[in-house]
Amino acid sequence: MAMQTIQFSEFGDPIAVAEVCDVADPGQPGSEEVLVETLASPIDPADIFILQGQYGRLPKLPAVPGIEGVGRVIQVGEGVKHLASGDQVMLPAYGNWCEQRRIAETELLKLPPHGDPKQLSMLRVNPPTAYLLVHEIAALNSGDWLIQNAANSAVGRYIIQLAGLAGIRTVNLVRREELRAELSDIGADAVLMDSEPDLPARIREITGGALPAYGIDAVGGDGTLLLAGCLAAGGVIVNYGVMSGKACKLSAEQLIFRDIRLSGFWLARWFEKNPQRAQPLYSRLATMIAEGRLRAKIDRAYPLAEIKSALQSAIRGGRNGKIILDFAKR
Amino acid sequence: MAMQTIQFSEFGDPIAVAEVCDVADPGQPGSEEVLVETLASPIDPADIFILQGQYGRLPKLPAVPGIEGVGRVIQVGEGVKHLASGDQVMLPAYGNWCEQRRIAETELLKLPPHGDPKQLSMLRVNPPTAYLLVHEIAALNSGDWLIQNAANSAVGRYIIQLAGLAGIRTVNLVRREELRAELSDIGADAVLMDSEPDLPARIREITGGALPAYGIDAVGGDGTLLLAGCLAAGGVIVNYGVMSGKACKLSAEQLIFRDIRLSGFWLARWFEKNPQRAQPLYSRLATMIAEGRLRAKIDRAYPLAEIKSALQSAIRGGRNGKIILDFAKR
Repeated sequence: MAMQTIQFSEFGDPIAVAEVCDVADPGQPGSEEVLVETLASPIDPADIFILQGQYGRLPKLPAVPGIEGVGRVIQVGEGVKHLASGDQVMLPAYGNWCEQRRIAETELLKLPPHGDPKQLSMLRVNPPTAYLLVHEIAALNSGDWLIQNAANSAVGRYIIQLAGLAGIRTVNLVRREELRAELSDIGADAVLMDSEPDLPARIREITGGALPAYGIDAVGGDGTLLLAGCLAAGGVIVNYGVMSGKACKLSAEQLIFRDIRLSGFWLARWFEKNPQRAQPLYSRLATMIAEGRLRAKIDRAYPLAEIKSALQSAIRGGRNGKIILDFAKR
Repeated sequence: MAMQTIQFSEFGDPIAVAEVCDVADPGQPGSEEVLVETLASPIDPADIFILQGQYGRLPKLPAVPGIEGVGRVIQVGEGVKHLASGDQVMLPAYGNWCEQRRIAETELLKLPPHGDPKQLSMLRVNPPTAYLLVHEIAALNSGDWLIQNAANSAVGRYIIQLAGLAGIRTVNLVRREELRAELSDIGADAVLMDSEPDLPARIREITGGALPAYGIDAVGGDGTLLLAGCLAAGGVIVNYGVMSGKACKLSAEQLIFRDIRLSGFWLARWFEKNPQRAQPLYSRLATMIAEGRLRAKIDRAYPLAEIKSALQSAIRGGRNGKIILDFAKR
């Protein structure tokens, strides 16, 4: 039996190097393995960077891309203890853009059975990133304010929802006026254009006087500078992405006189330092997603065979949500 | 009796706004005051910024500039307890570019009697900045490495000497080849051109493999980026100045994947948080200066009447040391 997979044999332009291939199906699972069919997998910025060869960790080539996805168990080995046919599972952090795989049971996390596979397929990276940015970096309490840029990004939207669930209030910087209503609908306390003159004064009006002590940056370049200007003295900026493609900037005035600090957040490192916290965190977030309390916006879903169009959509600016590979589509 | 002072009545071009004035002498000291004649005062970058109106704290105008200096007590009030005529003292952090002043005894710190006034006049700002950057920000032990840029600056040279006295080893980035011997002479363990290709590889050769975990930045802009590239993963950069005039830059790769952190250091804030530590710190540093273990390089000394030429020299690039106002000169 044959199945479809995406492969790449060199790093480069993702649309050029990612190819659809027909390969033999994975065969019977070993004793402690399960056979899984992939249901859905998003195209993440990190997938793009990995295809381009520009990421902190790169696979040996040739490789199957796809750092997240959700699957359904279709067969289990005799030694498998906690999974059964029909279970929805979170797939491992590599090689998910293929129709079927044999995977060790220990690499899979069981998910709620009735959760939407497309929403659950985005569980691995963005929801824990947003959760940890909201809850672990700065010690925020209910009623405190944070500020973020790129608020309409996937992580930005999870941050709005997770902060809202904890009573933490958010100032959200965006570039397009029409996002105001959309982000307010998912719980944003304030949505401001990043081009607005005298942002700090506008924020003081909204918060009743104080500037936020915590800023979350996914833009870099002048975006970091702008965010730092909206922070209270002694405030902290954490950067987790660089949509501008430019190095983060902080002025000497901000660093020296206003004591603003800058650091970065990388989920992979956090899990390395806190391995025992991964499963409880994922279970908690999976439940929130399955219950519809935490949702990502999806721009469009593509079948696996249309990978090049899907990558083109993912790379292009001006999307309105994530691009998903939907394995039920043909 | 008349005496000379420098005054400025508006913020602007320092050479234009700083004027020599003849004013009445300060008269007899009050009960808890001393009359002090100024011996020497450096022109600091902060003096320039204050004259330009671009500093974290600005005086009410008209004002006498001069944020540091050394004086000699010439008369004491009847209630003065710890100072006597002839004592050398560190002057307060404002208004020092005048020949004589009456000052409350509590604002003065007694200095070693035989120390060179020109060297001691630079005690207030740079030696404690360098000392705290070496000893308080990162927990370095004897044998550890730090890296700094602008290593030929006043603070940079104090850092080399203070690190050397503590057995902390320094990689020093400079822009001119001819500084290599000069900085080695005062104790620099390594002096590298900031333009050298593949600096991290050069540093690994020097240290025997590891990159420093602590970087001290006084350049900003691409200088911060370059410094961050020379640090071990998890390393810390502290910025205390911005010779490039540009915002500090850190790439997302450095922040997110390499976990480099950036913060700023401002001596005024440190003293605000640690008021009880000021006097012991100054006494320790004053002794080191008086004994010649800690020295700054002086480019040229000017009499007070030549303030405009002195400011011109201080503002101009390519100096080789500090510009000092020497009140013994006429």
